[in-house]
Amino acid sequence: MNFIDKLNFNDNGLIPVVIQDAGSGRVLTMCYMNLEALKKTLEKKKIYVFRRSKKRIMLKGETSGCVQTVKEVYVDCTDNSVLFKVEQDRAACHEGYFSCYFRKINADGKEVIEEERVFDPKDVYKEN
Amino acid sequence: MNFIDKLNFNDNGLIPVVIQDAGSGRVLTMCYMNLEALKKTLEKKKIYVFRRSKKRIMLKGETSGCVQTVKEVYVDCTDNSVLFKVEQDRAACHEGYFSCYFRKINADGKEVIEEERVFDPKDVYKEN
Repeated sequence: MNFIDKLNFNDNGLIPVVIQDAGSGRVLTMCYMNLEALKKTLEKKKIYVFRRSKKRIMLKGETSGCVQTVKEVYVDCTDNSVLFKVEQDRAACHEGYFSCYFRKINADGKEVIEEERVFDPKDVYKEN
Repeated sequence: MNFIDKLNFNDNGLIPVVIQDAGSGRVLTMCYMNLEALKKTLEKKKIYVFRRSKKRIMLKGETSGCVQTVKEVYVDCTDNSVLFKVEQDRAACHEGYFSCYFRKINADGKEVIEEERVFDPKDVYKEN
């Protein structure tokens, strides 16, 4: 049986996925896929996500060129989520940081940014 | 401002969180927290989750003793999810594996288990 057939998509037809950089082990982002995005991701070996705001699937990095190439795929024990280990082109975050989790929370609940931007979003997202 | 005040909980009052082992970098699980579980996690430095099937918050590892001690906290760029780096006691998965993502998917879409169980669930969850 293909693992896809057992997956539990939620009431909106989506399943949460975790994206991890295969080399560094950093968690890059978490997002959602519908069945179409998941199948296309597996077929093309590039991450496709269901963008809820646009109600359609999109190649992750479609605008910025920072695509994610799939290296390994894992499924969780309850068939409720999928983990992709990827090779990240430049940076995962639309803010220009390598990981979307670039803000660390200190003991007071305040955000601290400990890393440098990989790119300036103004140079990449011209329409902004 | 405390980062909690900006977080986007979904219509059910939940936010997805990713749990990563601080030492090995392995992604252990993803789960959901409500505001109460999140606050208790930050206060006690142990992961508490909102267990949807039981409709209450629970200490992760409450039954098995395999608790997760919080080392670092990160928030994603959209305030839509939280990443916890933890110290894992024994194993994260109720199936007895270190990570809930113990099933790797091969090129044919089939599951392959490449690692050993840390414990036998029968020894840990007596009521099963």
